[in-house]
Amino acid sequence: MIRGLQDAFGHALYDYLQSEGGRVLSVIERDDGLFDVDEPKNYFVEYQAWPPHQQEAMAYVRGRVLDVGCGAGRHALHLQGQGFGVLGIDESPLAVKVCKLRGLGQTRVMSVTQISSRLGAFDTILMMGNNFGLLANWKRARWLLRRFRGLTSAQARIIAESMDPYQTQDPVHLAYHQFNRERGRAPGQVRIRVRYRKYVNPWFDYLFVSKKEMEQLLEGTGWTVTRFLDSEGAVYIAIIEKGPA
Amino acid sequence: MIRGLQDAFGHALYDYLQSEGGRVLSVIERDDGLFDVDEPKNYFVEYQAWPPHQQEAMAYVRGRVLDVGCGAGRHALHLQGQGFGVLGIDESPLAVKVCKLRGLGQTRVMSVTQISSRLGAFDTILMMGNNFGLLANWKRARWLLRRFRGLTSAQARIIAESMDPYQTQDPVHLAYHQFNRERGRAPGQVRIRVRYRKYVNPWFDYLFVSKKEMEQLLEGTGWTVTRFLDSEGAVYIAIIEKGPA
Repeated sequence: MIRGLQDAFGHALYDYLQSEGGRVLSVIERDDGLFDVDEPKNYFVEYQAWPPHQQEAMAYVRGRVLDVGCGAGRHALHLQGQGFGVLGIDESPLAVKVCKLRGLGQTRVMSVTQISSRLGAFDTILMMGNNFGLLANWKRARWLLRRFRGLTSAQARIIAESMDPYQTQDPVHLAYHQFNRERGRAPGQVRIRVRYRKYVNPWFDYLFVSKKEMEQLLEGTGWTVTRFLDSEGAVYIAIIEKGPA
Repeated sequence: MIRGLQDAFGHALYDYLQSEGGRVLSVIERDDGLFDVDEPKNYFVEYQAWPPHQQEAMAYVRGRVLDVGCGAGRHALHLQGQGFGVLGIDESPLAVKVCKLRGLGQTRVMSVTQISSRLGAFDTILMMGNNFGLLANWKRARWLLRRFRGLTSAQARIIAESMDPYQTQDPVHLAYHQFNRERGRAPGQVRIRVRYRKYVNPWFDYLFVSKKEMEQLLEGTGWTVTRFLDSEGAVYIAIIEKGPA
């Protein structure tokens, strides 16, 4: 979804890196006309400043790690510094460039659907920063999760962050859930695009699920949630392990 | 240009006021597809935190004041606190509501083109925060400036802030200047709209001029620049007094 001239997300990360902490802000447009602002600096936050549930999640990482949607590499760089072998992948060429400039050793410009056994087997698949959402929709999520089984070791874990979309009273979001139901989409399946200056990414789907929905989604995929790590808000991390296929 | 459900600018100011300093950000869309972010908190800044050239400009205020495009009232409230009679006008109903809630005594929901002698005479017309731009284009600016003569006292001043659009090396802005020249507009005449959440203002024109352009624009209007107050950047304030008509 993020290519060349349309790499708005990557341009924002790259400009923020070059600005050395300056004012760089990008825009998230949702397909109901909602505009929100994204802060590239958030993709550069150091471990010490992460929310506790993200710090806690790092204790569940083991073995060889695949960081899916690595952004500016904040999680991958931390784990690399801890001695883990980490491959960071992102669809955004400029995000990957930023990771390289920041010292991440193993990177690939690649979407989650392009992950294959050619990358070798992983012990941990990391989807932090709400990146469970990169699974995009219910059908694709179940297809990808089944694929992940074959790309991971016997004791593999998925560490996936999401946000419960129902923890809101905001009428704009409640109306969006209903809009999604009416068009046969999951309520938390948002269609968005990133804008930064004159750059605009193509539209893409990003999936937010409640804990219950995540458990339902995993049924029959060969993966099971063994623990939830809660934040102070609607965001949470699921520790997911191989279960009955 | 800013009415009812389309008062994106006002909604952002109002939500920022209600948030008591929370994270409220709005979006500025330019008609070349450039997206930028606006920070409502900037419209609430107290005198002590203004840039020096804005503080200095307050020394030129005298008599009865009209604050054109008063926003959240930061300049009008300061002057009211200093004992000046100040009428704040803004096209945004919610901006005016914010001013009232913050204690501004005299307000009107009104565009710069609706100013008339029914408001009484003014000794100072204030257009801070780049609000010389509200004059919109060369032709309208000259028409309005001539009208202002009849609405002001003999010793009246206009205190107007603008930004020199040519103090940039940014290829996106340089291309926009050329785009404007080709369609017969002043290079610094930007067409923009404000977006905030799902609210969007209608498109409107906002005029940035260099000092030289401002002096050319004033010729024959009965107003003359008597002093420029410089900032550290491209922004400046002109002190404008009645000159030969």
